[in-house]
Amino acid sequence: MSDNTFGKYLRLTTWGESHGLAIGGVVDGCPPGLTLNEELIQPFLDARRPGSSKHVTQRKEPDQVQILSGVFEGLTTGHPISLLIENQDAKSKDYSEIANSYRPGHADYTYDGKYGFRDYRGGGRSSARETAIRVAGGAIARQILGDQISLGAALVQIGNMPVDRSNWDWAEVKKNDLFCPCAKTAIKWEEYLHKTRKSGNSVGAIVEIIASGLPIGWGAPVYGKLDAMIAGAIMSIPAAKGVEIGAGFAAAAMTGTEHADEMVLKNNKPAFLSNNNGGVLGGISSGQDIIVRMAVKPTSSILTPRRSITRDGNEINLSTKGRHDPCVGIRAVPVAEAMLALVLADAKLQHRAQTGRDGAAWDK
Amino acid sequence: MSDNTFGKYLRLTTWGESHGLAIGGVVDGCPPGLTLNEELIQPFLDARRPGSSKHVTQRKEPDQVQILSGVFEGLTTGHPISLLIENQDAKSKDYSEIANSYRPGHADYTYDGKYGFRDYRGGGRSSARETAIRVAGGAIARQILGDQISLGAALVQIGNMPVDRSNWDWAEVKKNDLFCPCAKTAIKWEEYLHKTRKSGNSVGAIVEIIASGLPIGWGAPVYGKLDAMIAGAIMSIPAAKGVEIGAGFAAAAMTGTEHADEMVLKNNKPAFLSNNNGGVLGGISSGQDIIVRMAVKPTSSILTPRRSITRDGNEINLSTKGRHDPCVGIRAVPVAEAMLALVLADAKLQHRAQTGRDGAAWDK
Amino acid sequence: MSDNTFGKYLRLTTWGESHGLAIGGVVDGCPPGLTLNEELIQPFLDARRPGSSKHVTQRKEPDQVQILSGVFEGLTTGHPISLLIENQDAKSKDYSEIANSYRPGHADYTYDGKYGFRDYRGGGRSSARETAIRVAGGAIARQILGDQISLGAALVQIGNMPVDRSNWDWAEVKKNDLFCPCAKTAIKWEEYLHKTRKSGNSVGAIVEIIASGLPIGWGAPVYGKLDAMIAGAIMSIPAAKGVEIGAGFAAAAMTGTEHADEMVLKNNKPAFLSNNNGGVLGGISSGQDIIVRMAVKPTSSILTPRRSITRDGNEINLSTKGRHDPCVGIRAVPVAEAMLALVLADAKLQHRAQTGRDGAAWDK
Amino acid sequence: MSDNTFGKYLRLTTWGESHGLAIGGVVDGCPPGLTLNEELIQPFLDARRPGSSKHVTQRKEPDQVQILSGVFEGLTTGHPISLLIENQDAKSKDYSEIANSYRPGHADYTYDGKYGFRDYRGGGRSSARETAIRVAGGAIARQILGDQISLGAALVQIGNMPVDRSNWDWAEVKKNDLFCPCAKTAIKWEEYLHKTRKSGNSVGAIVEIIASGLPIGWGAPVYGKLDAMIAGAIMSIPAAKGVEIGAGFAAAAMTGTEHADEMVLKNNKPAFLSNNNGGVLGGISSGQDIIVRMAVKPTSSILTPRRSITRDGNEINLSTKGRHDPCVGIRAVPVAEAMLALVLADAKLQHRAQTGRDGAAWDK
Repeated sequence: MSDNTFGKYLRLTTWGESHGLAIGGVVDGCPPGLTLNEELIQPFLDARRPGSSKHVTQRKEPDQVQILSGVFEGLTTGHPISLLIENQDAKSKDYSEIANSYRPGHADYTYDGKYGFRDYRGGGRSSARETAIRVAGGAIARQILGDQISLGAALVQIGNMPVDRSNWDWAEVKKNDLFCPCAKTAIKWEEYLHKTRKSGNSVGAIVEIIASGLPIGWGAPVYGKLDAMIAGAIMSIPAAKGVEIGAGFAAAAMTGTEHADEMVLKNNKPAFLSNNNGGVLGGISSGQDIIVRMAVKPTSSILTPRRSITRDGNEINLSTKGRHDPCVGIRAVPVAEAMLALVLADAKLQHRAQTGRDGAAWDK
Repeated sequence: MSDNTFGKYLRLTTWGESHGLAIGGVVDGCPPGLTLNEELIQPFLDARRPGSSKHVTQRKEPDQVQILSGVFEGLTTGHPISLLIENQDAKSKDYSEIANSYRPGHADYTYDGKYGFRDYRGGGRSSARETAIRVAGGAIARQILGDQISLGAALVQIGNMPVDRSNWDWAEVKKNDLFCPCAKTAIKWEEYLHKTRKSGNSVGAIVEIIASGLPIGWGAPVYGKLDAMIAGAIMSIPAAKGVEIGAGFAAAAMTGTEHADEMVLKNNKPAFLSNNNGGVLGGISSGQDIIVRMAVKPTSSILTPRRSITRDGNEINLSTKGRHDPCVGIRAVPVAEAMLALVLADAKLQHRAQTGRDGAAWDK
Repeated sequence: MSDNTFGKYLRLTTWGESHGLAIGGVVDGCPPGLTLNEELIQPFLDARRPGSSKHVTQRKEPDQVQILSGVFEGLTTGHPISLLIENQDAKSKDYSEIANSYRPGHADYTYDGKYGFRDYRGGGRSSARETAIRVAGGAIARQILGDQISLGAALVQIGNMPVDRSNWDWAEVKKNDLFCPCAKTAIKWEEYLHKTRKSGNSVGAIVEIIASGLPIGWGAPVYGKLDAMIAGAIMSIPAAKGVEIGAGFAAAAMTGTEHADEMVLKNNKPAFLSNNNGGVLGGISSGQDIIVRMAVKPTSSILTPRRSITRDGNEINLSTKGRHDPCVGIRAVPVAEAMLALVLADAKLQHRAQTGRDGAAWDK
Repeated sequence: MSDNTFGKYLRLTTWGESHGLAIGGVVDGCPPGLTLNEELIQPFLDARRPGSSKHVTQRKEPDQVQILSGVFEGLTTGHPISLLIENQDAKSKDYSEIANSYRPGHADYTYDGKYGFRDYRGGGRSSARETAIRVAGGAIARQILGDQISLGAALVQIGNMPVDRSNWDWAEVKKNDLFCPCAKTAIKWEEYLHKTRKSGNSVGAIVEIIASGLPIGWGAPVYGKLDAMIAGAIMSIPAAKGVEIGAGFAAAAMTGTEHADEMVLKNNKPAFLSNNNGGVLGGISSGQDIIVRMAVKPTSSILTPRRSITRDGNEINLSTKGRHDPCVGIRAVPVAEAMLALVLADAKLQHRAQTGRDGAAWDK
């Protein structure tokens, strides 16, 4: 990972600001011969799109992706795939107040500190708008992973209300506006979000991402561990403040007899009796589901006035109007799923480079 | 991060197995003219050293580091610094049982799956023995960071017993064998660990790492975020299962009014009223303390027999004898601190490359 | 250098095919606060532009570059700079013959071998059209280098006719269509090229690139040598078959007394009596002019029929019609200059990262 | 390539100075299961070893390589391979003269400029002693390439005396001390070198390196071109001043009808009628022999006094005594061969990562 490039074997480089002409990205290292077109990418972008429900920002962006290179007659050529999405609803307005003040919890202060000035329109490069291209890149990563590997993500907590896991239904995730896998919980969350927004506030959330169907052997030891790559990828999502694998932080309170996933033979094949390690052992995929959770902080942009300072050194009370998500964790769901897809596709290519195989030694 | 190399601008490449002749590493990209010698590194290694108390593995290793290159007349030359530590207490014994069985929670099964076979002596490359070189690398990173930046790490939870934060004393961390910042908590933990070990079990833990004195501006947006780098670095530590920054997972249950750190002027200088963001805003250091927590799973190697399978496809009950840490989180404390030092030194060099400055634009 | 990305500290990633909708690139790692706009880039693109004289391809492309990100109020922000050039004269014609045959000296055969198929329209990704973005990237690199460093490039040989060096005039390079630093030689070359084109043939050339004003200290030892970086960069230009530094291949026939550049004091400052090393000693800039030469092969696309084979395994006689440069070395001149600019900007950032300085230790 | 690390998919990181305790390196990314031991590496080191004939430096180094990690029971494990060679004949002597003066043609002046000071003993990091580890790394690269690919290198010119190519005999290369493929030329060269050394002088040379048996498809377009990688690798060898592929600089004087390698069918398989492109088309291997030539400058360390300056600003006449090669091109032969092996192994892994194949699409 190098500033604006993600991945080593499969590389996604993104560019663009919230209120520029467009945002975009380049996917390099993609295998040739894979089916790819805009229609395969668009559904993932639609899931992340702003303005799709009252629980997310009301900025209206069709987020229509264009593929400008790297595809010929419907197939990837092995050359860089250029992706472009126009910014259509970038409001031209008076930015003088934002330009001179530091919004609490935002990158305004640190960008000025690092670069000496900043593109303040809509947060510029620090805007979560950049994540649209991650989602597009994730759709390409899925084509590399193939049908054998399935990915899913859901919101599992809003505020202090966890989802009812006994009622988990993946189909439900696509039915409600909150990526909630339990219909009843979704209703409770909607009410709570409504109140939160009305009161000029916002709230945090937890996202869970799961990948199934991995072979044994993806990832690498030491610094290239699959879980280390995942942690870096997930924490690079705007507003992410924590990431855990398998039992995660709960592992701290567990004993060795509880945590270590025992193995048995099922139908003469190796099987695990639990998955506290979240599908990764020693940094390498074990064939079990990859289980990741991400903590997302509450949106920093809120109507309720907060104390802050201006660029020229005065104290102010700042109320952020604009169009903002009351719970930025919602739209982080498809983004987190895309980042996991990108990590796994990268790991697949690493494994191929070093071993010449797609899967385990014994699957050769 | 590329398999066995950590960092982009400052790069640490490590090598070696638990029971080979030696372990070592190479630090590349180090600025010239810094004071460096073995005596500056050794204290950090001593803190991580096995056999130093009854709460850690009884393997006896002096862990004397040798600098083989990159230093001339006591100063770094700007050329690669080669570090070497001999393995002295690698027991030559009968490994046939380990060779043929997969220890639950270990990399045995996944290494065989990825590579087709493995160096099973003491876990080979998957052994936490590799982390000694991380600690040595971290000591070099500290020289790059200079005196202005201070780092500290402590154990803040063992099992379900958190430290008494009202009684936090950094001096205490160096006094007890558990890196515990509260003397009373340390006694409770020692008793619990004693029982745990006696019962052939192990337990998880949480480590907290803090860095103070950073300028505003280190880190980069998007994929090079300082917190993303930290998350990847921390999760690459053996047995790590979770990482969080600032309020971390607790942020999920917070509202925007609670979480967003308000700013004021103190003595005419910008100041924050809280630090829920853990010293990072938009991926870039804000000048506040960097606060990181890592969840460490319980040692998988326990005396209590666990179900597992053999390489040739039979079910077994496996009791791991050997010399193992009952709480691997203890020795992870200096390792986590070293990883944070390496990330920060890398970020310092990134900032210099792009801006030509060590600190904030207004400190020029 | 990683497939479609050039550079480590300053990174240019390019994308696009000869006959796609557009070509483009992303410059990442650029320092903030530099003046940048399309007008600063365009003159360099105009120098490389096709259709500008009868000696180059007659494809008409205005090559108007658009900056889509990374610049705010006329200054670079430190964020990725997205560059885009539309393809306007990509002829829609019958490609069936090209699609099925391998043009000698081209990438047709090897692309099919590597990827299984190829975008055959105008050579797809293998077309020198990609070099327009290198030229745009080079213009940005110049802004990073600043006014102190000046770059120039010229054609010094066409066929077996070297330029008359005794008559070298940098101003002349911009006056004729051949980047020739001698007006008389230019006339001879023009006549020769006219004949060559008429006879359905093409010819090779040698380009010389010079950079002045470098401080002492850019570059790095071993694999990061400044001359190694230059060699890789130059050889990545389409049709390049050789690269040399300073005396280059002539050094093979020299003795140590002739070659080693002696040093003296001039006005109390270190000075060299010759520059056989081309401004690089031990991989690091010596403050002398960087002198590089590149051999360019004759255009492979010629009217004269050549023997070749088809994709489906038949022998053919192939005459390449289309619009092609009779001497591809001409338009390689601004491309080579751009690549040297990119290498030097990368080296400047490397030097800053490691030493915290822009120049020599004694200039601090 | 990143300062002291070579390669992207297969990475060699080297360390060590001429007069330190040892030199060494780490090979990362190596496929598992390959046969490897010291005996496989040693013959290549012996070919490069100093003191092996009167035509090379008289420093006596056994150059016995030790493998410290990454190999288990005679096979590579897929983990980093640590290589170490002790420095045994590093003379402890009075370096005060060297410490204070800048040897013409050496890195003394530029190292001081970049780093502020230098390890002056035997040239420190700038010494060609580092190339021993390249040769060891090249031996590992050969194991990755396998038996199908063969590499050879020879000296083809010393001073202005080219080898008699009509009399080329690969077997002869191993028989004489000069890696000369013609017995008669070898005798002429030996006489000339004897005179050159006696007169306190040195001379340049040209090395040719050839690789056979490559599949079609290794390499990548644009910046990852196989010939660009080779050019960077070769130019990183100490004293290299030029590199060319196939016809190289001679291509400048050729026409398109002469240069473009025509294709025919031989035994129903694609075949080329010439190899002016040196086995690379569009940056990707064509299946023909890879042909590379490197220009090596005359040794800068000569007995004949040369003008130079001291660190503290005085003019001097410098005669370099010590133990030096009269023609450093000789020992560059095995080094160049090793670098080509490293590039090709890297390209093999790149090709596998992206395509999942070792060879051409039609060889699947």
